[in-house]
Amino acid sequence: MLCHAASQMGIRIVILDPLPGCPASSVCDEHVIGSFNDEDTVREFAKRCGVLTVEIEHVDVTTLEKLEKQGVDCEPNASTIMIIQDKYRQKKHFSRCEIPLPDFMEVDTLRSIEEAGEKFGYPLMVKSKRLAYDGRGNAVAKNKEELPSVVASLGGFERGLYVERWTPFVKELSVIVARSRDNSTVCYPVVETVHKENICHVVEAPADVSNKIKKLATSVAEKAIKSLEGAGVFAVELFLTEDDQVLLNEVAPRPHNSGHHTIESCYTSQYEQHIRAILGLPLGDPSMKAPAAIMYNILGEDEGEAGFFLAHQLISRALTIPGTSVHWYAKPEMRKQRKMGHITIVGPSKISVKSRLDNLLQRNSSDPKEALVLLL
Amino acid sequence: MLCHAASQMGIRIVILDPLPGCPASSVCDEHVIGSFNDEDTVREFAKRCGVLTVEIEHVDVTTLEKLEKQGVDCEPNASTIMIIQDKYRQKKHFSRCEIPLPDFMEVDTLRSIEEAGEKFGYPLMVKSKRLAYDGRGNAVAKNKEELPSVVASLGGFERGLYVERWTPFVKELSVIVARSRDNSTVCYPVVETVHKENICHVVEAPADVSNKIKKLATSVAEKAIKSLEGAGVFAVELFLTEDDQVLLNEVAPRPHNSGHHTIESCYTSQYEQHIRAILGLPLGDPSMKAPAAIMYNILGEDEGEAGFFLAHQLISRALTIPGTSVHWYAKPEMRKQRKMGHITIVGPSKISVKSRLDNLLQRNSSDPKEALVLLL
Repeated sequence: MLCHAASQMGIRIVILDPLPGCPASSVCDEHVIGSFNDEDTVREFAKRCGVLTVEIEHVDVTTLEKLEKQGVDCEPNASTIMIIQDKYRQKKHFSRCEIPLPDFMEVDTLRSIEEAGEKFGYPLMVKSKRLAYDGRGNAVAKNKEELPSVVASLGGFERGLYVERWTPFVKELSVIVARSRDNSTVCYPVVETVHKENICHVVEAPADVSNKIKKLATSVAEKAIKSLEGAGVFAVELFLTEDDQVLLNEVAPRPHNSGHHTIESCYTSQYEQHIRAILGLPLGDPSMKAPAAIMYNILGEDEGEAGFFLAHQLISRALTIPGTSVHWYAKPEMRKQRKMGHITIVGPSKISVKSRLDNLLQRNSSDPKEALVLLL
Repeated sequence: MLCHAASQMGIRIVILDPLPGCPASSVCDEHVIGSFNDEDTVREFAKRCGVLTVEIEHVDVTTLEKLEKQGVDCEPNASTIMIIQDKYRQKKHFSRCEIPLPDFMEVDTLRSIEEAGEKFGYPLMVKSKRLAYDGRGNAVAKNKEELPSVVASLGGFERGLYVERWTPFVKELSVIVARSRDNSTVCYPVVETVHKENICHVVEAPADVSNKIKKLATSVAEKAIKSLEGAGVFAVELFLTEDDQVLLNEVAPRPHNSGHHTIESCYTSQYEQHIRAILGLPLGDPSMKAPAAIMYNILGEDEGEAGFFLAHQLISRALTIPGTSVHWYAKPEMRKQRKMGHITIVGPSKISVKSRLDNLLQRNSSDPKEALVLLL
């Protein structure tokens, strides 16, 4: 999607990806096959780029730092990737910057995690500091007795763990913030993200919350991003609590699943915005050009052929629904719960896009107003 | 742009283009370098395609016909390309189908063109039957005395010429019509095209004409396309006359410059629609998701570096204007009047997109209401 935005503007993209025939390989100018965790590979790759950016934070950041010192232009900066790829370090950073977030603490022994349990209560969220995404690297201990097995399931304390106070949120929100090289920022409309088994499942834009909450979420997100270094698009995932607090959950230093809808619904997509930001071009208008959008992730529902069959059935239905755009990533392998594509529905109202999603998923709407729209 | 739409949906595209490094080469799955006028090349190329389509009508249609007989799936059909690539044949076809169009007649001698001049009056439009586009292959004789030189300027009668009665139109309109493999059609909103030196310069969507004219234009366009064979997206260029007649000017059997705005402004772009049509997928919603759009072609204003400099100045301004998307085709050579890219401005009203265009072109608006918007 980043390659599409770049090529539309005539900007050349060279990608580094270990997989021959990876999705981006057919839409970039050149594909260097190699690991983004290998120092030599990253160094050689950087020589070919005017600006180096990342689409995944799990890269060899030590090499990025060295390259920056040699004058390579990394956006966002290595310092930002370093803070973000270690979730505990990320929390410490945002806590120091006075961004509201759930209580957390590092744990490295059974004794320290038991202390944390006493302090924060149960259920207790236990997390890996690194390489955690889509719920991987997270586990919940319901009580003190579960702590040893939960720690073991995450690979043990040597993996690097921390705990968080359980946050009984009412909604999860997300704000995409773009920051230019001159540190000016623009924020996309606040969206609601709905997760299923810890994986982003549905995104509703704009979020169905009060203007006061929208303002608060936007200001928390903007403040968080202003504390980091380098240009680009960032996703700020937030919890909205029962008492109308907005707490930072985590930040991604790149275009994000919660911003996929922007391709069809906003004047400037998050991808074009990222390109504009890292190249030092003026930031584009992040506002929505249509009243409502909803994004549905196509997750693998089964392995192999059976999974492809189910995905194709879903896509066939999507193609019959007005305002619907199908994105299929053409990943070579289908796996259960893998993000294989996404579907965005744009429409004249929140109610219409929601009822179209119900149609797509062949489910009856629970909302009588929506059911009426379906009948019309 | 067709490749972008296909790759978004995970559909593989192989292109045939004679130029190594041509714009589409970095966004397709495979680029076969070769001429679309060479029979062997086209035949070999066709073997690799599930469906064969064209983005230019000046192809070797005899080969397409042979391939169709051998079972190759060409969309739209060779018969359609054959009708359209010869403009005289195209007029005869639409005339037989009772589509309203300006009077025309074949001319092959000085005597016959003089007779045509007496019949249609002057100025007289003289046109080449083939390989005509962007005003190339058209010439105007102001009087009988100019006929020999005008004929010579078009390459002589042996080139294949016809004449058309001069149409004093008040606006040029265009309708993109998509036809699926089952012959169902959908029509995009009527747009106004503004030409400068015979090259499309600005497209306004929707056109500023009455609903009655919109209906008439849509019905003429739809009837014209229903008379052709094969699936795909077609552009129907129309003249609106002083007495509210809508006459067909010409048809393009492919996505068209007058539909570029659909990428940002419509639920389904003309490119995605073409892909859906030729593959037999359900046609998408052609309606606009934003109230107004305006498209401005970036034409080369000078040769080489000087031309690039001027284009870059224009693009720099475009990037500062809200709702503006820049498309730069990355053609390797800049030439005067060459289409190097385009800019689409989408916005909440016709007046706002027009005043943004005035801003882009650094011109003062002639409309006082628009000038007011600029001041606000």
